[in-house]
Amino acid sequence: MRSVSIIGVGCTKFGERWESSLRDLVAEAGVIAIDDACIVGEQIDALFVGNMSAGRFVGQEHIGALIADCAGLSRRHIASTRVEAACASGGLALRQAVLAVASGYHDIVIAAGVEKMTDVSAGTAADALAAAADREWECFVGATFPALYAMMARLHMRRYGTTHDQMAMVAVKNHHHACMNPIAQYHAELSIEDVNRSPMVADPLHVFDCSPISDGAAVVVIVPTEMARSFVDTPVRIVGSSQGSDTLALHDRRDLTTLDSTVIAARSAFRQADIEPWQVDVAEVHDCFTIAEILAIEDIGFVEKGQGGRVVEEGITALSGELPVNTSGGLKACGHPVGATGIKQVYEIVLQLRGEAGQRQVDEVEIGLTHNVGGSGGTAIVHILTR
Amino acid sequence: MRSVSIIGVGCTKFGERWESSLRDLVAEAGVIAIDDACIVGEQIDALFVGNMSAGRFVGQEHIGALIADCAGLSRRHIASTRVEAACASGGLALRQAVLAVASGYHDIVIAAGVEKMTDVSAGTAADALAAAADREWECFVGATFPALYAMMARLHMRRYGTTHDQMAMVAVKNHHHACMNPIAQYHAELSIEDVNRSPMVADPLHVFDCSPISDGAAVVVIVPTEMARSFVDTPVRIVGSSQGSDTLALHDRRDLTTLDSTVIAARSAFRQADIEPWQVDVAEVHDCFTIAEILAIEDIGFVEKGQGGRVVEEGITALSGELPVNTSGGLKACGHPVGATGIKQVYEIVLQLRGEAGQRQVDEVEIGLTHNVGGSGGTAIVHILTR
Repeated sequence: MRSVSIIGVGCTKFGERWESSLRDLVAEAGVIAIDDACIVGEQIDALFVGNMSAGRFVGQEHIGALIADCAGLSRRHIASTRVEAACASGGLALRQAVLAVASGYHDIVIAAGVEKMTDVSAGTAADALAAAADREWECFVGATFPALYAMMARLHMRRYGTTHDQMAMVAVKNHHHACMNPIAQYHAELSIEDVNRSPMVADPLHVFDCSPISDGAAVVVIVPTEMARSFVDTPVRIVGSSQGSDTLALHDRRDLTTLDSTVIAARSAFRQADIEPWQVDVAEVHDCFTIAEILAIEDIGFVEKGQGGRVVEEGITALSGELPVNTSGGLKACGHPVGATGIKQVYEIVLQLRGEAGQRQVDEVEIGLTHNVGGSGGTAIVHILTR
Repeated sequence: MRSVSIIGVGCTKFGERWESSLRDLVAEAGVIAIDDACIVGEQIDALFVGNMSAGRFVGQEHIGALIADCAGLSRRHIASTRVEAACASGGLALRQAVLAVASGYHDIVIAAGVEKMTDVSAGTAADALAAAADREWECFVGATFPALYAMMARLHMRRYGTTHDQMAMVAVKNHHHACMNPIAQYHAELSIEDVNRSPMVADPLHVFDCSPISDGAAVVVIVPTEMARSFVDTPVRIVGSSQGSDTLALHDRRDLTTLDSTVIAARSAFRQADIEPWQVDVAEVHDCFTIAEILAIEDIGFVEKGQGGRVVEEGITALSGELPVNTSGGLKACGHPVGATGIKQVYEIVLQLRGEAGQRQVDEVEIGLTHNVGGSGGTAIVHILTR
C-alpha cells in the first residue's frame, strides 16, 4: 500500500446559500482545492463524492456523474463514485479515495462532499435527516433524530453525572471558535444561559444543543506521498484511515453511552498511524449534538469514559486548552451540510497543520484527527493527518 | 493487484414484493449467496451495497450500515459502504468491492444491490427515477426519463434506419428468455404486435419498450482468486472491471446515438481482460428501454454502430443465436429494481458460466460480460467474467 498525502483543500462558506445550487457549491469548493493543489482539472484521475440525500433535498441522484460533469471532467469519462453513509458520507468519500490511491489504482484523486439542504422546508429536512436512523424500528414508532441523542444524553447524565451545563459549554466553545472562522455559518457568541433558555427540542437537548441545517461543499485533492512535493511545498500525510459500523437502531447496541463504531474506527486508525491518542494536537469531531462531542472525545480515547463533560468544563478542549477540539466551530457553529462535513473537518485540520488557520491557529500542530459519524453511530470514519 | 473471483451468488425473485421490506430482500439474497459460497457470515471482511434511492422509495438512507445490521455483521463493526450511480449502482458496488479485494485491503467481500420501489405510487417512482437524469437542465424543462431515450431512439431510426419493430423484437426476445427464468418478474410471452399496440409513453417508445418498476436484491461474494478454490469447485474469475462517466444531460454529448461512457468502460475492460468483443459467449446488457439494448451491443463493440437493430432482427442475440444477450430476460422482463440490476446481471452470467442456467443455458460458455448503465449514460460499468 502506498502512503497518501493531501496536496489541496477547498471549502465554500457554509450557511443558507440560496443563490447557489448543489453543483455551484461543488464547483466553488473544487476550484479552490484545485488551485491550492497547483494542478489543473485534466490531471485528475478519479472522483469520490460524499452526499447523503440530494434525492430528497434537491430531487437529484446520480451525484457522481453530476459532479464529474459540473467539474468539466466528464469529457474524459473519468470514474466518479458517489458514496453515502448519512452524515459520514464526506469522511467515507475520503476513505474510498484513499483506498483508490493507496492501492495504486489511481494517482490524483478528488474527494468531495456536498449537501444542499435549505431548498426544502424544515419539516422535510428533518424527515430527510431521520432517514439516517432506522426508519422501520425507530422513526415509525415516533423517535426523531434529536430524540435518539437525547436518550444517549440522559443515560450519560445519570451514569456519569454529566450536566446539561457541560453540554451547553460545548456549544459555547464551538460558537466562540466559529467567530474566528470565515467559512462558518454562525458568527455569534453564545452563553450557557442562551443555550439553556433556547427552546427544548428533545429533553435535555435544546435548540442550541443541535447543529443547524446548512448548504455547503468541501473538496480535497490527494496523491501518493512520493508525488506530493512535486506539486506543493506543504503536503499533509494521511497516516490513518478507518471505518466502523454498528447497528442502525439504538436498542440493539451494547451500550447507549458509547458509539462502538467510533471506538473501532479510532483504534484501527491509531494502530495504522502507530500513534497514541495523547499525541494528537488538534481534532475535529462529530458534534451533531453537544452530547455527541462529549461521547466522541471519550470514544476516540482522548479521555476516559464518563470524563467528557468534566474535560469540556475545564477548558481542555478550548482553543487555549491542551487538546483543542472543533476549532472550525464544529458541526454546531460552522454548520452541518451533512455530506460536506467530513471533508470540511479535513479542510480545517489541513489548515491547522499548515499554520494557516488565522486567529484560531493552534500552536505547534504536528498531528490532527478527524472523526465523522453517520446517523446515531451506525457508521464512524476516523482519519489521522500529520505534517 | 490481485486477481479476484466470485465464489457465491444469490438473487431474490424480482417483482412486486409487497410482503418483503428492503432489509428482508437483502437478507434473502444474502443467505443464498453465503450458502452458495460455502462461507459463514463471520468470515466476511467488508460490504459494498448498491442502491439508487431508498431515501425516496422507503425513507431510508444510511444503507451501508442498514445492510451490515440486517446481515448480522454490525456486531463486528465491519466496513459497509453504500455507493450510488442511479441504475448502475449495483455494478458500481461490485467494482468498488473488486478494488477492495484486488488491492489487498480485504479478502472476503460482499457486493450487494437492492431496490424496493413498489411501496410508492407510480408517479412518485417515476419522479424518483427522473433523479437519474439532470434535474435542473432536463427534468425541470419537461423531459421525462423515457423521453430522453425516445430522443436517442428517434435519431438512431433516422440515421441508421432502425425500425420500431426491431426495438419491439428486443422486448419479445427478452420476455421469451424471462419465461425460462424462475426469478423473473414476468413469465409472459410478447409479440411484436403486443408491443406496438401497447400505450405510447414517449414516441417511439411504447409501454412494452420500457423496463418495469420492481423490488429485488442480489448478492455476490468475492475473494482473491488464489483463495477461491478453497471455498468452492467452480469459482468465476473477474478478468475485467471498468467504469466510465459522461455528462448527465444529453445536450452536452458528442453524439446522441452513442453512450461514450459505455464505449470507454467496455474498451478498458476488454484491455484488462486481454480479449476481444467477438470472444464473448453471453452478455447481460442494460435494456432499460428496448433502444438501450441496441445502443449497448453497438457501443460495447459486439456489432458496428448502426447495425444493432438488424442484428436483433436476425436473431443473433437470441438464446439460439451466436451471441445470446439478456438470457435472464434483461431489465425489460426479469425486472429492474434499479440498485439490484447490476448484481443480478453478474448472478446470471455466473449461472451461465457454471452451466446452471437451466432451460436458458447457453452452450459452451467460457466468457461472459455484464453492462450496467446509470441514467441516460452518465455512468457505465462493465465486467468481464470467465470460468
